Amino acid sequence: MKDYLDRLIELALDEDLGAAGDVTSTALVPPEARGSGELVAKEQLVLAGLQAFTRVFHYVDPEVKVEPLRRDGEELKPKAVAARVSGRLRSLLAAERTALNIVQRMSGIATLSQQAMTAVRGSKLKVLDTRKTPPGMRSLSKEAVRLGGASNHRFGLFDGILIKDNHIAAVGGSITEALRRARQNAPRLVKIEIEVTSLKQLAEAIEGGADVVMLDNMDDAQIRKAVELAAGRVPLEVSGGVTLERLSRLSKLGVDFVSMGSLTHSARAMDLSLEIATTRGSGRARASKKPQD
Amino acid sequence: MKDYLDRLIELALDEDLGAAGDVTSTALVPPEARGSGELVAKEQLVLAGLQAFTRVFHYVDPEVKVEPLRRDGEELKPKAVAARVSGRLRSLLAAERTALNIVQRMSGIATLSQQAMTAVRGSKLKVLDTRKTPPGMRSLSKEAVRLGGASNHRFGLFDGILIKDNHIAAVGGSITEALRRARQNAPRLVKIEIEVTSLKQLAEAIEGGADVVMLDNMDDAQIRKAVELAAGRVPLEVSGGVTLERLSRLSKLGVDFVSMGSLTHSARAMDLSLEIATTRGSGRARASKKPQD
Amino acid sequence: MKDYLDRLIELALDEDLGAAGDVTSTALVPPEARGSGELVAKEQLVLAGLQAFTRVFHYVDPEVKVEPLRRDGEELKPKAVAARVSGRLRSLLAAERTALNIVQRMSGIATLSQQAMTAVRGSKLKVLDTRKTPPGMRSLSKEAVRLGGASNHRFGLFDGILIKDNHIAAVGGSITEALRRARQNAPRLVKIEIEVTSLKQLAEAIEGGADVVMLDNMDDAQIRKAVELAAGRVPLEVSGGVTLERLSRLSKLGVDFVSMGSLTHSARAMDLSLEIATTRGSGRARASKKPQD
Amino acid sequence: MKDYLDRLIELALDEDLGAAGDVTSTALVPPEARGSGELVAKEQLVLAGLQAFTRVFHYVDPEVKVEPLRRDGEELKPKAVAARVSGRLRSLLAAERTALNIVQRMSGIATLSQQAMTAVRGSKLKVLDTRKTPPGMRSLSKEAVRLGGASNHRFGLFDGILIKDNHIAAVGGSITEALRRARQNAPRLVKIEIEVTSLKQLAEAIEGGADVVMLDNMDDAQIRKAVELAAGRVPLEVSGGVTLERLSRLSKLGVDFVSMGSLTHSARAMDLSLEIATTRGSGRARASKKPQD
Amino acid sequence: MKDYLDRLIELALDEDLGAAGDVTSTALVPPEARGSGELVAKEQLVLAGLQAFTRVFHYVDPEVKVEPLRRDGEELKPKAVAARVSGRLRSLLAAERTALNIVQRMSGIATLSQQAMTAVRGSKLKVLDTRKTPPGMRSLSKEAVRLGGASNHRFGLFDGILIKDNHIAAVGGSITEALRRARQNAPRLVKIEIEVTSLKQLAEAIEGGADVVMLDNMDDAQIRKAVELAAGRVPLEVSGGVTLERLSRLSKLGVDFVSMGSLTHSARAMDLSLEIATTRGSGRARASKKPQD
Amino acid sequence: MKDYLDRLIELALDEDLGAAGDVTSTALVPPEARGSGELVAKEQLVLAGLQAFTRVFHYVDPEVKVEPLRRDGEELKPKAVAARVSGRLRSLLAAERTALNIVQRMSGIATLSQQAMTAVRGSKLKVLDTRKTPPGMRSLSKEAVRLGGASNHRFGLFDGILIKDNHIAAVGGSITEALRRARQNAPRLVKIEIEVTSLKQLAEAIEGGADVVMLDNMDDAQIRKAVELAAGRVPLEVSGGVTLERLSRLSKLGVDFVSMGSLTHSARAMDLSLEIATTRGSGRARASKKPQD
Repeated sequence: MKDYLDRLIELALDEDLGAAGDVTSTALVPPEARGSGELVAKEQLVLAGLQAFTRVFHYVDPEVKVEPLRRDGEELKPKAVAARVSGRLRSLLAAERTALNIVQRMSGIATLSQQAMTAVRGSKLKVLDTRKTPPGMRSLSKEAVRLGGASNHRFGLFDGILIKDNHIAAVGGSITEALRRARQNAPRLVKIEIEVTSLKQLAEAIEGGADVVMLDNMDDAQIRKAVELAAGRVPLEVSGGVTLERLSRLSKLGVDFVSMGSLTHSARAMDLSLEIATTRGSGRARASKKPQD
Repeated sequence: MKDYLDRLIELALDEDLGAAGDVTSTALVPPEARGSGELVAKEQLVLAGLQAFTRVFHYVDPEVKVEPLRRDGEELKPKAVAARVSGRLRSLLAAERTALNIVQRMSGIATLSQQAMTAVRGSKLKVLDTRKTPPGMRSLSKEAVRLGGASNHRFGLFDGILIKDNHIAAVGGSITEALRRARQNAPRLVKIEIEVTSLKQLAEAIEGGADVVMLDNMDDAQIRKAVELAAGRVPLEVSGGVTLERLSRLSKLGVDFVSMGSLTHSARAMDLSLEIATTRGSGRARASKKPQD
Repeated sequence: MKDYLDRLIELALDEDLGAAGDVTSTALVPPEARGSGELVAKEQLVLAGLQAFTRVFHYVDPEVKVEPLRRDGEELKPKAVAARVSGRLRSLLAAERTALNIVQRMSGIATLSQQAMTAVRGSKLKVLDTRKTPPGMRSLSKEAVRLGGASNHRFGLFDGILIKDNHIAAVGGSITEALRRARQNAPRLVKIEIEVTSLKQLAEAIEGGADVVMLDNMDDAQIRKAVELAAGRVPLEVSGGVTLERLSRLSKLGVDFVSMGSLTHSARAMDLSLEIATTRGSGRARASKKPQD
Repeated sequence: MKDYLDRLIELALDEDLGAAGDVTSTALVPPEARGSGELVAKEQLVLAGLQAFTRVFHYVDPEVKVEPLRRDGEELKPKAVAARVSGRLRSLLAAERTALNIVQRMSGIATLSQQAMTAVRGSKLKVLDTRKTPPGMRSLSKEAVRLGGASNHRFGLFDGILIKDNHIAAVGGSITEALRRARQNAPRLVKIEIEVTSLKQLAEAIEGGADVVMLDNMDDAQIRKAVELAAGRVPLEVSGGVTLERLSRLSKLGVDFVSMGSLTHSARAMDLSLEIATTRGSGRARASKKPQD
Repeated sequence: MKDYLDRLIELALDEDLGAAGDVTSTALVPPEARGSGELVAKEQLVLAGLQAFTRVFHYVDPEVKVEPLRRDGEELKPKAVAARVSGRLRSLLAAERTALNIVQRMSGIATLSQQAMTAVRGSKLKVLDTRKTPPGMRSLSKEAVRLGGASNHRFGLFDGILIKDNHIAAVGGSITEALRRARQNAPRLVKIEIEVTSLKQLAEAIEGGADVVMLDNMDDAQIRKAVELAAGRVPLEVSGGVTLERLSRLSKLGVDFVSMGSLTHSARAMDLSLEIATTRGSGRARASKKPQD
Repeated sequence: MKDYLDRLIELALDEDLGAAGDVTSTALVPPEARGSGELVAKEQLVLAGLQAFTRVFHYVDPEVKVEPLRRDGEELKPKAVAARVSGRLRSLLAAERTALNIVQRMSGIATLSQQAMTAVRGSKLKVLDTRKTPPGMRSLSKEAVRLGGASNHRFGLFDGILIKDNHIAAVGGSITEALRRARQNAPRLVKIEIEVTSLKQLAEAIEGGADVVMLDNMDDAQIRKAVELAAGRVPLEVSGGVTLERLSRLSKLGVDFVSMGSLTHSARAMDLSLEIATTRGSGRARASKKPQD
């Protein structure tokens, strides 16, 4: 949603520029100097975040022109040019770091998501993200996950019931009772998922009418038995400590979903840089941004 | 600063809760139910973010009690308890994910920073962060870097002059001229750093009166010559593609600073969880949060 | 959610007080004068909005004391006292109108909802609200509906799929295709409801696996046939021009839900007033607020 | 004022869309699909709110085209088309409900105001609104009242002195003293109205130099005597429990103003719908919005 | 109003502290160090702004204790102590400049207003402010004017009709017509003032029923004739280029009001300082703030 | 920075217009009436604030056309026209006062700064501002200082270390220790200035490696000795009670900087007015704004 993205961009620009602004450019770049830049991939990656990238520049200066050359979700080879920007040089330099900080992180998440999908290729297993997203980047992170080919779990606390141990404890410890109350009080068009840690709980959850069951921290042997017990009556999600390595094995066990916090909480930033050329001013020189401050 | 942190927390809670709120707790947790929780390290880490962690809970509900048991910057062993929270169970569950998302990331940055400092132990080399921080987390990221023992580069575009290739191009390509204009126009109490890519440029930068010089993407041999050339007349910073592996080697070359974007752009989230126990309601059960959604 | 309610209250107080404030109280009420007031029902009603009522006073002045005497959802007879407020007289007068504007509207919705529930008493028919709430009052309106005993439809556009004619048209006019795409793309824990206008469409919707079907603007005869056709395979919702009068008839047709926009878009404000007594100042007089400006 | 309306629209869109957005359109409507819609009156009404209607669409998407076909204040017959919108289908669907929620309520107020004016036609009696407006809709409500032909009382607490029983009590119970202090302390260009409940008080108010006197909850006989007593020396306003039925009678009593809270607190929403046609996508179908969720 | 003042304080603190905060205190003052300070008058002045002064400290740190020793509106001799603050030393230093910037300006306005009142002492002439206040300080400025003994003109564009040449031109150039339309359209409890530049216009304004007439840029002779012509039928305000020197002369001409932009647009800041003593830390020393940065 | 300026403008317009708006124009100016205006200097001044002036008009109405005729920093003679505005008359009148309030204050600061520069002409002495700026106008004030030819001290607390008596006290009273800690903890590219009150302290500050030393409240004789003692090893700044009169004397003492709070805290507003002509409506008349409300 526009409003949330704008709040994040405004916050990020505020912390980078403050009220005093970019003192280097103020000291050195004539206000009328113009430039253009290319967003270049420095390694292989799945591109994500072009829309936010664009909006950062427009937030700083609505007259900056941003021209996408590739689409979000495309795989880029090193040196591929993803977009071109042009306008006042001061505006480009003020927006550069904030725009890159977003597109590098989103591309990191998309690329990691694609790697996860590669690991389960050929199976019906869907790889899900979690709510473990950088604060303020929930929507951007979930979009990046989809661009990498993986799927979203619920967006937040508002669009799905996920009953965990604390909720079960709060109603007295009974899974059946938890499911009954959830069905009674759930928002109108929202499904009910419940987390279980044993086959006994799984049986009770299926009996109680859960829409989805999450198998929490089970090993492969337990998961195999759970799939057998469920026998297709309810979709099963594996959760807890899932690494890229384990994914391929999981894809053969017959579960429907696996959720991986690492997709969004530990993806590294991809190396993309903005190579800016000064096009009007007292001279002209091409300069590549490198990964220092 | 309070105001910036509050804006980030408000944004993060908004995206997690929306106007509809936590529908699972609304359906299952009685409003009067109370609980308490422990923030537990699940792996070895340097703790960071307790203040923000506390503020998230207080933002949701000023009556939640948060009691820190360890201090930011301390090293925690697995199973160490960093803090205790208690209050309305609904409030704990509404704040949990957002609070963890912050403390896990900050601890990740602090832990990685500590590893970097270990690599340079015994030398005078200072390891610096960059502006490559998650959008909205500039201040939190820089604090985590310090807690891990590393140092901050400038905070934003406003508290230091850092002359890069584009700025030099904008004044016609001359390092001398760039430094002259910077000195003339720089804010009153701000130093001037300039990025160079060759020994010739380095000599010109020293001549021109730079306060600090950044050696951009130089290999060890070049760096060694640069140190010789500078001969202590100006502090030198190495930048560009610095990994943990290279750090130890760099610490022997005689440069003063090295900046590493990865400290903040690619630190993984540390595994910390909030183990909540329901203390009042229809029953009582201890439950550990695990790393699923 | 706290944040949304605060934004509404701040907006309402801003439009009532502006930067210039309450010029009558400034001219006439000594800053140190104190008063107390009673929130009194002037007609029979279902009370709703005490929490927001309280927050308005605390927004104006955190030292005002608000003491609830009745609970939201209770039925009040005329003259019943719902709450007591006390504090600086200037604060009471500045908050009074805004607080009443909210509690009168919420009680109106709760009372109308209760009347709707009375009309369907003894049947399994659930009466639902819609998204036709006053702008800024979505959460308060939905809460009032529940306090009156009726149920909430989805909260917003984010917590349920509701496929209408435009969506079907956008995928080429096929209900089957619309349901297929919805299942494929729906958020993880969200159900799919679809609106149909004929029995043929209903059959296609059931075949296509809709979770709920909305019968749009059907008359009683059509609804009867729809119930027969569905035969319990899918819950049915009646929608379109439903009045209090028609409710009782609908409750006998065997449908599961009926949604009524009028619950929130046309409920009249209930008559509640704040009867304030000046407790400290140059005199003492009881005064009842009446329904003029 | 622009700023206030924007805050209301932002709040209303936030509660409808949250950070997750319109999940139905995301699942079913291709991003490039376009549509157009007509704002159609479904019953006879006085149109109000076209400007706010337009701004909601532009807030969601500045490229949506909104073309008004009728003017605010015009009377529309059923089926009359008030405006046309066109643009991205996703944008139209995201803005639709919020835009309608505003225009339906404003038209409701305008229509009721017109009915009130009809009741007093031929007399000099002016019908006034009050501050009993939906929170956040003060300015929109007052505009709707004018569009229906009625008049505005003061806008808020800042643009007029209205001395009520509590204020009189606060200065010791004397009307004369209250008026004296009000004159002394009133903002420079603001008039003083005072509320009286008896002829004795009325006489004192006139003596004390009130600019307007409000006759509070008097019956017709008392009002007649008050008019006689005032003898044109001061304008008189009737207030308290005024219904449409009583208006015509009041118009013959010689008072100058009557204020009616119901104009804004209990007007029902008018039935207007947005009939959207998909103009680009996999097909084309005209679809009428009906009054369900 | 609280909300406006908070917005101003937040903006002022943001521009002084940014996201990076007070780097001097961070470097030198231990977080646990405490201090106390006295707000001391350095010259004779009328005190104004204690409430805003207090709120700045509480905004930075709700635990700072602020104890007023004198009241707003009191005349202070040099060295008089107006208030005491105590709490975390870092909080005191972060708030100090912003708090002083407000109280110095408000005291400047109050002191100048008092000088104006002294110049007209013994006459009935009321000295008024204008809307020429520092942006964001309207309410604070008007309060300071009153504290100095002068009076407020209208607060803003919303609480009084003031017809100037442009408005007269907009209705075709006729004062009579302008007044007729103003009466017809004016908000309910708002008076009408009109600006005239000649005796002929004054006569027309009185005839047309103006509530107040502003004599625009007239000299003493013209003003004398205007007073004669008005003969008490309407209050007269003198405006335009009024200096402290001219005030005493004007007070003898029989006009009712004189408005002076300089009260708020050109008052100098009074010299008040915060003398802080460190009460806990590695030492103790009394230090006076002096008027440098 | 755009964001900060927008917040100030929004606040200033809110306090002038509130939710009720410009009631005079609403009553008298037809919505379709258009006008144009000239920003005219009424006295000799250095122009400052054209960009903010423009933004106020665009904030009220993006369609107002603003055409600058002179540049910020130019000296204007009386009657010089600095800019032209044209558009809806209601928009011009709504923005006029807020726009003028900013440009008058900024021009006042620029003009006073120019006078200070005139006093030191021919010397190397740089005249600095302070942080004593009107709340919310930090950036505008600093810009005006530069436009008048003077220089900026640090922008806020975040872009320079300035060690004062309280900081020295907080580390135990030792200048040497304060400088040591500052060097250790200072942000990366920030210089360290320290305030001294005696020659002994000055010697210790130079010894301790201060980047700049501020001579606090010294008389000319002391300053002369300080210059001798420093002997060019460190730049010296004079601060405390510096008047325009003293400046010329100071310029001959050999210090490098002098800071003057009065540049921003006590500059009077320059007399500039907006002379508006109605260009479309029922008539046409040129009207000059004069300095009344």
